[in-house]
Amino acid sequence: MERTVFYISDGTAITAEVLGHAVMSQFPVIVNSFTLPFVESIERANEIRLRIDAIYLESGVRPLVFYSILSPEIRDIIKQSSGFCQDIVQSLVAPLQHELGIAPSPEAHRTHGLTPSNLSKYDARIAAIDYTLAHDDGISMRNLDQAQAILLGVSRCGKTPTSLYLAMQFGIRAANYPFTSDDMDNLVLPPVLKPLQNRLFGLTIDPERLSAIRQERMENSRYASIRQCRMELAEVEALYRKHNIQYLNTTNHSVEEIAVKLMEVLGLRRQ
Amino acid sequence: MERTVFYISDGTAITAEVLGHAVMSQFPVIVNSFTLPFVESIERANEIRLRIDAIYLESGVRPLVFYSILSPEIRDIIKQSSGFCQDIVQSLVAPLQHELGIAPSPEAHRTHGLTPSNLSKYDARIAAIDYTLAHDDGISMRNLDQAQAILLGVSRCGKTPTSLYLAMQFGIRAANYPFTSDDMDNLVLPPVLKPLQNRLFGLTIDPERLSAIRQERMENSRYASIRQCRMELAEVEALYRKHNIQYLNTTNHSVEEIAVKLMEVLGLRRQ
Repeated sequence: MERTVFYISDGTAITAEVLGHAVMSQFPVIVNSFTLPFVESIERANEIRLRIDAIYLESGVRPLVFYSILSPEIRDIIKQSSGFCQDIVQSLVAPLQHELGIAPSPEAHRTHGLTPSNLSKYDARIAAIDYTLAHDDGISMRNLDQAQAILLGVSRCGKTPTSLYLAMQFGIRAANYPFTSDDMDNLVLPPVLKPLQNRLFGLTIDPERLSAIRQERMENSRYASIRQCRMELAEVEALYRKHNIQYLNTTNHSVEEIAVKLMEVLGLRRQ
Repeated sequence: MERTVFYISDGTAITAEVLGHAVMSQFPVIVNSFTLPFVESIERANEIRLRIDAIYLESGVRPLVFYSILSPEIRDIIKQSSGFCQDIVQSLVAPLQHELGIAPSPEAHRTHGLTPSNLSKYDARIAAIDYTLAHDDGISMRNLDQAQAILLGVSRCGKTPTSLYLAMQFGIRAANYPFTSDDMDNLVLPPVLKPLQNRLFGLTIDPERLSAIRQERMENSRYASIRQCRMELAEVEALYRKHNIQYLNTTNHSVEEIAVKLMEVLGLRRQ
């Protein structure tokens, strides 16, 4: 079975899309999806309504529509389309209104927007990205005591994407420090990191996966060989254990999962 | 009015948190929130249930609980708590089941997880982050034809965070190119960018905001002066217009909004 699905919002539509994906993934349906952000005018809404209606007329099957729109006028246009419309936020607001015993105030709220009230938080997030870039891959060891998290690991185990995600999504200043093949003869924890032990978080990965990732970068190199990968990982894991550094095997985890696990372990609160 | 709110998930809880925030922001309630990711065991669920019950007993007010948990056993424990529980995904699944006429398959799905089926997409996303870092701030002009988007703008107008967000969230290879104060005497579009015009996207920003951001970095410098900011922005805006480069004023837009607008303008599809 195939269905056309629309994710529509007056903002970025990121929330509508993520939630809609989660819902649709529970059904054995082939999804042909369209994401339509910034639907902020009557004209644009009418265009979309016509588009939904045209698909219904042509296919005889109602498109599914997941939407989140604040303005009642614009929302009503979408709801009047022939699509099967689901308001992702309102479906939760209605029962909550009953529980709280107060009416929702239809105040402009943009989940992924910039408002005077969240500007300083936003600036902190940009500052965290700056910090993280400046402290990527051990580039700078200065001001390391300002890091909220310091990721350790061998080359290509996921340090950089995780650090950037921590900064981008949660505004966390994340530094990362690489252990290279040159370090392996006598692997020690750099003295500068010792006093920061409660912010250290080690990454490891299965040697087979690491070797595959490194092959992409440098085919048939010693760097990418399974033997080298196995040796480097054994060394760093021994180091983590010796210094009681908490660590995670990233093989089956996404950047989001690694970031959230790290925050749990280091006791970092989401902003 | 103050309420305790829980965001609970067997995954990262990012979706529960984002949607829960959107819902709660519609009510004039002071929220004291806790995000509990990776609730994957009966023991952990029972702990949380006790915690919810304790808050209810102590305060006499039911905590609000937004949750998304796949396992029926674990889900039921949370539902049996004294919290006001809202299943963020199921509340949309039920009506959809009726519309589609098929039962949902309770297959393990992790929105922000790594599965064999999305591994290649995930690798592409990591490759996009690598590409974007290698092409940040004009560091490398090699392989620029592999960029899906090239952001232009003066220092501190939002190029780097937006490029990284495009790569991180949407797997888009985004390069960015800075115009510096040295370029201003004779501002031209670099020859290497001319054949790539359909991938260029200009950023601009209000001089007052740019000056404030630059002050944070270099206080009382010429670089941060309002006069310098005004001059640089006037020059780049003239360049954008001359070459018909689409551009956006980022002053009141978040990184998410800039990224989504850029994708709309350049016709890039979300992955």
